[in-house]
Parts: sequence; C-alpha cells; structure tokens
Amino acid sequence: MSIEKVNELRDQMKDITNQIMSLINQRMKLAKNIGEIKNLLNLEIVDEKAEHELKSYILNCSKDLDLDPEFSGRIVNLLINEAVRIQKYQRNAAAQNPLNKPETNNEIYKSKLSQESAPSRSFQSNSVLQLDIKSHMDVFNAAKYLESQGHKIIHMEVGEPDFLPPTEVKKGLEHVYEEHKVHYTQSEGILPLRNALSEYISKISGYDENSKYISVNPSNVIVTPGGRFGIFAIFSSILRPGDEIVVIEPAWPACVDCANYMGAKTRFVRTDLQHKWEPDINEIESQVNNNTKIICLNYPNNPTGKILPKKTLESIAQLAIKKNVFLLSDEVYSNYKYKKFSSVVNFEYKKSILLNSFSKTFAMTGFRVGYLHSLDHDLIYKLKKFQALALTSVPEPMQFCALKALESNTEENCKVIKERIDLVCNSLRKLPFDFYIPDGAMYVFAKIQHNLKINDLKLVEALLKNGVAVAPGSGFGSKYSNFIRISTCVQESKIKSGMDKIANCINLL
Amino acid sequence: MSIEKVNELRDQMKDITNQIMSLINQRMKLAKNIGEIKNLLNLEIVDEKAEHELKSYILNCSKDLDLDPEFSGRIVNLLINEAVRIQKYQRNAAAQNPLNKPETNNEIYKSKLSQESAPSRSFQSNSVLQLDIKSHMDVFNAAKYLESQGHKIIHMEVGEPDFLPPTEVKKGLEHVYEEHKVHYTQSEGILPLRNALSEYISKISGYDENSKYISVNPSNVIVTPGGRFGIFAIFSSILRPGDEIVVIEPAWPACVDCANYMGAKTRFVRTDLQHKWEPDINEIESQVNNNTKIICLNYPNNPTGKILPKKTLESIAQLAIKKNVFLLSDEVYSNYKYKKFSSVVNFEYKKSILLNSFSKTFAMTGFRVGYLHSLDHDLIYKLKKFQALALTSVPEPMQFCALKALESNTEENCKVIKERIDLVCNSLRKLPFDFYIPDGAMYVFAKIQHNLKINDLKLVEALLKNGVAVAPGSGFGSKYSNFIRISTCVQESKIKSGMDKIANCINLL
Repeated sequence: MSIEKVNELRDQMKDITNQIMSLINQRMKLAKNIGEIKNLLNLEIVDEKAEHELKSYILNCSKDLDLDPEFSGRIVNLLINEAVRIQKYQRNAAAQNPLNKPETNNEIYKSKLSQESAPSRSFQSNSVLQLDIKSHMDVFNAAKYLESQGHKIIHMEVGEPDFLPPTEVKKGLEHVYEEHKVHYTQSEGILPLRNALSEYISKISGYDENSKYISVNPSNVIVTPGGRFGIFAIFSSILRPGDEIVVIEPAWPACVDCANYMGAKTRFVRTDLQHKWEPDINEIESQVNNNTKIICLNYPNNPTGKILPKKTLESIAQLAIKKNVFLLSDEVYSNYKYKKFSSVVNFEYKKSILLNSFSKTFAMTGFRVGYLHSLDHDLIYKLKKFQALALTSVPEPMQFCALKALESNTEENCKVIKERIDLVCNSLRKLPFDFYIPDGAMYVFAKIQHNLKINDLKLVEALLKNGVAVAPGSGFGSKYSNFIRISTCVQESKIKSGMDKIANCINLL
Repeated sequence: MSIEKVNELRDQMKDITNQIMSLINQRMKLAKNIGEIKNLLNLEIVDEKAEHELKSYILNCSKDLDLDPEFSGRIVNLLINEAVRIQKYQRNAAAQNPLNKPETNNEIYKSKLSQESAPSRSFQSNSVLQLDIKSHMDVFNAAKYLESQGHKIIHMEVGEPDFLPPTEVKKGLEHVYEEHKVHYTQSEGILPLRNALSEYISKISGYDENSKYISVNPSNVIVTPGGRFGIFAIFSSILRPGDEIVVIEPAWPACVDCANYMGAKTRFVRTDLQHKWEPDINEIESQVNNNTKIICLNYPNNPTGKILPKKTLESIAQLAIKKNVFLLSDEVYSNYKYKKFSSVVNFEYKKSILLNSFSKTFAMTGFRVGYLHSLDHDLIYKLKKFQALALTSVPEPMQFCALKALESNTEENCKVIKERIDLVCNSLRKLPFDFYIPDGAMYVFAKIQHNLKINDLKLVEALLKNGVAVAPGSGFGSKYSNFIRISTCVQESKIKSGMDKIANCINLL
C-alpha cells in the first residue's frame, strides 16, 4: 500500500468518471428525443407505468451487482426527475415559442429549473387582472386586488380564524420587555414552553381507551416557527433527493411542495366523497416501497373535515411499523373536532411524528409558533441541529406568548366554528352540491354537481366576480377540480351573505 | 414519430441507466480502496490538488462531448462529495472500532451521512463534563453547565449585546394586540416595514462620495426571520449541489455550514493578522471558477473587526461583476463602525446582496428579524417563494416591533461597545497576545504568542476553568487555532474582571 497505488486508483477513477459523464449526456439526449415525440403526440410527460418498469428493471440488475436496493432506487429516481425536468422545460419552451429550434443541453442546464418545476411556480403566471386562479392563495390575491378597486369581497377562501388570540396572550405581550424575553433561545425552544406543551399534548391527545393519560417528555418536543416550518424541518432532516413520501389526497399542498423542493417524489393515495374520504389501506401499502420514508396524514383533514375512524388510523400505523417508515401526523385542526379524535401519539410508535401549531387552536397565525413530538431521539437531534443551522431559534417573545396561550380555554373557538359549519351545510343542502358533513376542521369541501357543467376554476372566478371568495378544489389535488372549499373564518352574518351570493351566482349559471 | 419509437428509446434508456449504475458502483469501490490506503498512511481525506486535477481532466473531455462546463463541473463535484463522504465514514468507523471488517457499500448507504458530515456534527461529540470544545457555542454550553454546578462565569464568548432593545420596541409590544398585528403577512414582509427599511438602508449605507443618498426601492427588500435565515434562503435560492461559494476566512461559520448542508463546495481565501486581515484580490480570483455562484463578504468582520478599505471592496465588486457571480455582503455589524464603512448597496451591481439584521444594531437578537436587499428581481422572486414555502412569513408582531425600532437612535450602542473594545485592547497590550485594533464589530481577535506554547482549545478550556469564557479561533476557520475571540457583550466592570482572570490564567501557564 503506497501513494503510488493511490495515484493508480485515481487514474482509474478519472476514466470511470469520464464514462459516467458520457453516459449521462447520452441519457439526456434520449430524454430530449422522447420529450419531442411526447410533445408531438401530446402525451403526458410523467408516465408512472414507464417509471415503474424502469425501476423494476434496474432493481433486478442491481441484485447482480450486489447494490443496495434503496441506493439504486434513489439514483434511478434522480435520473427520472432529471428527464422529467428536461421534458417540462422543452414543453414550456415549445408553448412559448413554437417556431424556436430545440434547445441544446447547455441551454437547458443554464436555466435553473429544479426550483421552477416546483408547484409554487404556478404563482408566477398569476395575473390578477385576468383572475388566473390556481390555488386558494391566488384567490386571496385576486380578492385583495378587487378590494383595492373598490369591490366588496367576503373572504371564505383562507384558513385564518377571524377571532383574536386569547387575552392571556395580550398580557404576555405586555410583559415580554420587562421580563427580558428578548434573547436567543435553545434551538429546540425554551424549556418552560416544552414542559407546558408536554402536559398539553398529554391532555389533548394522550387519552387512551382506559382513560389514562399518555406521559409526554419535554425532551421529545421541539418548538418550530409554525407548522409549515415543522414540515420543512422534518423533510430536511429525513429526506434525500430520490426518496419518496406518501400523501393522501385531497391535502393541504405544503407536504407535496416541500417534497418537490427537496427532490423527493410524492406518491398519492386518492380518497373520494363516495367512500366518505376514507383511504384504502391496500392502496397505501401499494405505494410504499424501498425508497418510501414518510407516510403523511392530516386529520381532522383540510379540506374535507374528515376524521379517520380509530380502526383505520390503527391499520395505517401498523403498516408504518411493518414497513419501518415515519408516520407524520399533521393535527393542526385537532381543537376543531366534532367527534372523537385519536392522536398519533397514542400509538407510542418510535417513528410517529405529531405536528401541531398555535395558529388555528389559539387564533395565533401571525405568531408563527408550532411544535413537534417524536420518540425518535435521532430525529429530535437532527431537528435541533437543522433549526440551529437555518434560523437559530423561534423568537423568544413569541415562545413566551405561546406559553401564556396554553393557560387559556379554547372550547369557545371550537363551538363558534361548528355553528358556522352547520350554517354552511344547511345552505349547501339547497344548492347543487354534494358534501360530507365535516367531523372536524374549519371547512366544507363541496362537490359541484355534474349538471352544472362548470369546473372549480371557472366557478371560483364567477363567485369572486359576485363578491364571494372560495378556494378551488384542484389546489388540494389534481383530481378534485369538481370541488370547492368553503372556509368558515368570517362571522355568521358574512357567512349567510356569502352563501346567498353563492346561491345567486349558481342561479345565473 | 410514434409511440413505438418512444418505447424503443426507452429501452435504450434502460440500458444506459444500468450502465450508469454499474459505473457508479465501481467508482464507489475505488473510493473505498483509496480511503483504506489513506487511513493506513494517515493522509488527509480531502485532497484539493487531486480534486483539481480530476476536474480539469473531465472539463477537457467534456469539450469533446459538447457538454456545458458548468454542468460537468457540478456533476464532478457531486461525485467527489460522494467519495469524500464514503472515506469520512470509513475513517470514523475505523476510529470507533478498528478491528471491524470494512463496511459494504450497502452499510455505508443505509446510514444517512450527508448531514452527518456537516460541521454541526461536531456538536454531537460535545460532552460538557470533558469540556470537549470546538466552537463558541460549545463554550457557551460548557459555561452554562459550569454555572449550573455553582461556578461563576464571565461570558465573553457570545455575540449577544447585553443592553435591552430600544424603548420604542417596548411600546410596540404593548400595541400589537389592540392594533391586531397578529396575522399572516406577505412572505416578503409587511409593506410599512419594507418602506421604512428602504429609507433606513438609504440613510445608513447609501452615502456616496458626492454626499448623495442612494435611492432604495421597497420591492427590492425582503424581511427574513433573522440574518442566519437570510443566508439559508439565499443559498437555497441560488445554490444547487455541486455549486461553489467563496468565503474569506476567518469567518462566522454560518455560510460554510449552510453551503455544506446544501451539497455546495466552499473555497477559502485566508487572511492573516500580518497583512491586517486584508484579502488578496488575486487569491479571490483564483478561487472563482465555472461553478462559483457567490462570493461571501462580512465586514465589519466577525471575528477580526476589520473594515475593508473602499478600494479593496471596489476591486472585489469589480471581480464579481467580471465573473458574473453574486456578491453577498453580511453587514450585520454595520452599526458598530469606528471608521468609514461602505456598504455593498453603493455599487448598484445587480448581483450584489445586502444582508442585515435587527439583532446587533438594536439588541433584538431574540426577535429574529433580518432583512435583505437586492436589485435582482429574479432572486427577489425566488426568495419570496422560498419563504412562503418554508415558513409562510416572519411573525407579524415581530415585524411591527422592528418597524418601531427603526424610530430609535442606536448611536449610544456603538459608543458603549467602542469603549469596551478599547478596554479589552488596553488589557491585551500587557499580555502575550497580538491583535489588530478593530475598525468595527464587537470583538477582539487575539493571536496567542508562540512562546505560550498552547493552542486555542486548551487555552479556552483553561480560561473557562478560571471563570472566563472566550471563543476558540478555530471555530472561525481551521487555520486560526492560535487565536481566541474576546466578545464585549458584558458591562465594563465584568470586562475588567474577565481580563484580570485572563491575565491570571496566563501567568499560571
């Protein structure tokens, strides 16, 4: 063993590296050729069947090479992502300038597309003048624009409670300065808040069949700057490019967007109104493979208001345990439950992760405080390190206010929203919509009856022009373009007026 | 052109994909063989010369393939990162269990190493009992531990001002609730704050030679949850794995840590006390290549207190313009300047990015509010989208307080710190340390004289046991293990006592 041997091996490495470059180049050219034909024949760019075939073939070959199937799967996913990216770029370019000659590899690579292909990209084409609407945020922006032009709009598109945070929070704000709560804190959050959260989690979700509280340890709790960053931090800590997650649709789009951003692949399990938004456990299982790292749940669900029966939740947890994948449960609507709700903490499964937030329960959206619970010490360690790397800590004044909020009673919030939901449901019954009566959360997800012959985007636009803003169903999954989501975050009189406007608009269609 | 042709091309793709997998497997095996020899010969894992040779070779070959040099460079960097990762894993495994048989590829890939090899990993081995210290945060944690055991420690290791935020902020906190500043905001920050920041940036940094203010447009300003997240967001928006940044050392480690996290490579330009911490422009130029995306500056500098002469800054800006790379200027210490300081906004270069924060100027570390300015609309667009994806927005109560803070006068803060710095310098002159008298910031970076025969970590440990905490130089760059950083964030009497403790400890060595 000597330095000469190192040099010899390095020469071999140079040669192999060059061969890899050459093959990647060939693969890119093939992807472009296929893309051109897909454009001519107007075929979908993403072809799940072809992807699956390629993956099976490579995994078979990898066995002969003694390669780890997870590693091989990730590399193949990366190469597929790259091909999809190139083909999407071609299609956009062709759409923008059909007479242009095809781009060279260089041009494709000089534009920074990996982020452009993220769903958030759709915002860019949003012109409020043309009301080019694709998501609830587009509706919100369009509504704001119309208001600036003197129109009156009833906001039933966004999920921000209209009531104020508890008065305990007001007192908290007034004491931040004199109590010197103005410093950097531990990246996982201040201990008094994590202590209080442990008790709170135990109280709200730790209730098991025998009426015992689950004991929650503050060392398993992390305070995050909002629920959304909780997802971002979890994905950053767990996922590598080429990994996969499973999402049950319809769904709040944050999980899919964050996975896309990180180069991870989302596999979807679609639920429907006909089956009362219940996911099929076999379908979930069929979407889990060697590269799956996380199954994402969100119950009470945004947008459907579904709460899973305990049995279904248990069978999903059993599947996660069997497959050794993380079970991320976004429970930010757990305060708004109109039937029994069981939290993921009850399973005491090491790889289950509870995500919750102060935003909806305490009407503290603007404070940006969320929290996570996990029994996996390695994950907790990574999350702390990630928060320290990305943003040091959650603002101490906000943590102090969150601590005060935990002293308040939030039952009234739940009661108010439930009454509003009943109001919306009663109005909807007289209109050509079908819907599931929500078990929880703050929304009604209503299916546009077929005889109306209008999709969600057209209907949302028509409603907006009639003074009421609602969210298009397709913002929660591509298969839900015959749904609208009606939010109950305005007071009763406005809801009544909003529902009247919907009725009027439907009559005019 | 038909679907049959697509299938035919897909078969070719399968074959090529399989060849790529096989070659990557061979490359991994070679990397492991080289790693084993490096371990036996105790050679450094990272060999910049060998990396450079490989890259030059591949770039030459790429010309024949008509491949984009930037694309090729990125792929090669990725393959190199992978090899380094494997070799580091081998070395750790060998150190932990020297009798173990070498790991298989599978085992290496099953452990999630990409994050473990980040510098923050060093925290994990930190045991406060053994005072295993590697960075100023380790010192802080060790000091906290000693305090919990009844020891008294003077904290001269961290950069958190000891004074309170301006009283305007106290009033702001008291009005958050009644003014309903408790909501989601635009991801780029509320307009009143961006308006006020535009004026403020213009006032503090837009002063050009002819006494004119640079006009700053609020659409070029983004509010971030702290300066650290500003860096994280910029890197997330600009860097892809395999890209490169240039950092001038010694440096606050956030840039290097964030780049590592994102799979980007940092090239270092080292400055030294002998040359008054002035970087050599030719050395900077030599570190810029096809894959370089950002040159990172931090003046007034943490830890040295250096402010660059205007001419040097101009030549760096000229270089950035010539090479078409971003120039990121972290100016969080700009309120603490004891000679003329020129901001990067004066260059009106599209790719320059100003980073600043409320933390140091207004003693608002715990509020986590920072801000960015850039003339590049594409970057601003990406930053907005990234913040919307990762965390929705900065807490509105904190933005409201930041707005109030801008009404305050911060000259006194600067005066207080300058007096403390003089105090530290006067004490240090009587001790076996060499140092540059700071032009700005809140620290003195002192070189341990050779005859003391002690490195930074040993000295920091000895000082801590004597009741004074300072930061080791090696936390700001591997070449600065003969320096300590003394922070001035405690009141004068404590600084005097801390410097006495340092003197006593040195006498005992």
